[in-house]
Amino acid sequence: MMPKLEKGLIHVYTGNGKGKTTAAFGLALRAIGRGFKVYIIQFIKGGFDYGELYIVDKLPNLKLKAFGRGKFILKKPAGEEDITLAKEALTLAEKVVKSGEYDLVILDEINVALNLKLIDLKKVLDLLKNKPVHVELVLTGRYAPDEIIEVADLVTEMKEVKHPFNKGYEARKGIEY
Amino acid sequence: MMPKLEKGLIHVYTGNGKGKTTAAFGLALRAIGRGFKVYIIQFIKGGFDYGELYIVDKLPNLKLKAFGRGKFILKKPAGEEDITLAKEALTLAEKVVKSGEYDLVILDEINVALNLKLIDLKKVLDLLKNKPVHVELVLTGRYAPDEIIEVADLVTEMKEVKHPFNKGYEARKGIEY
Repeated sequence: MMPKLEKGLIHVYTGNGKGKTTAAFGLALRAIGRGFKVYIIQFIKGGFDYGELYIVDKLPNLKLKAFGRGKFILKKPAGEEDITLAKEALTLAEKVVKSGEYDLVILDEINVALNLKLIDLKKVLDLLKNKPVHVELVLTGRYAPDEIIEVADLVTEMKEVKHPFNKGYEARKGIEY
Repeated sequence: MMPKLEKGLIHVYTGNGKGKTTAAFGLALRAIGRGFKVYIIQFIKGGFDYGELYIVDKLPNLKLKAFGRGKFILKKPAGEEDITLAKEALTLAEKVVKSGEYDLVILDEINVALNLKLIDLKKVLDLLKNKPVHVELVLTGRYAPDEIIEVADLVTEMKEVKHPFNKGYEARKGIEY
């Protein structure tokens, strides 16, 4: 029999610092190490070339699906395609969470999708409120809305103290992506 | 030929919030996804039962060695055994970094070992200053000394915004450890 959490919590990793997505992936690693089943759904980022994607297939009990046009959306308003993809990601998230089949569900960059109004905050709040008791949820991304912080059990702000990109460095393959 | 970073940086993950060690492990996952070699050296935590340890063996190009008595040291002064183990960890770190064989070296909880004065700050600063150019270093743990922050390129403070343990929850297998 697979282990189940007695009570799954809702985590948020937000803030302008490094380590939000990687912390979620590290948590996924810890959870599958215990025999839990993990599903990672990536909002916004899909299609972009991330190092971690090359190793995920090799890991047991870990599923990942990415949605998005392969680039960060920096400007509002977002395009029709961004909205469609983010809504598809949310539909999958609702299905995966409700099924109760996965012990840990990571909604990567969902906070950004909410901030850009690609998806409906009310729907996400309903998803959080109605999740099966044993399911642990992780929501990552800058700009987590106050309403999400309010319902979360565990909120960490990744705060940038010092960053070389401020000094003109470029993102490096294998480290930043 | 294995890829090499043109210039490896020094990261610090510190602060009282969740996600420091998991962010380092997530970064390890990303790096090995790109074909980099990664070495994780755990100060303090060794022997303690962490979920991620069960999966690390299954990953290519990832080595992990843990030092410590299997519990967190909460009180100063630390015992002789804690000091011996932390010094052994530092000796290994020096060897691994100098060899240049590993592209990413993670010194997990080294900040706590420094704060507890288990190891010599001057030695760690020398290690950082004399690292091979291509080696990326990650130092995790609360209480990163100012001198470490000063030489680091990239510093993120994981700041606790909300935490259920404040409300009497207990650490859960597969999530907190």
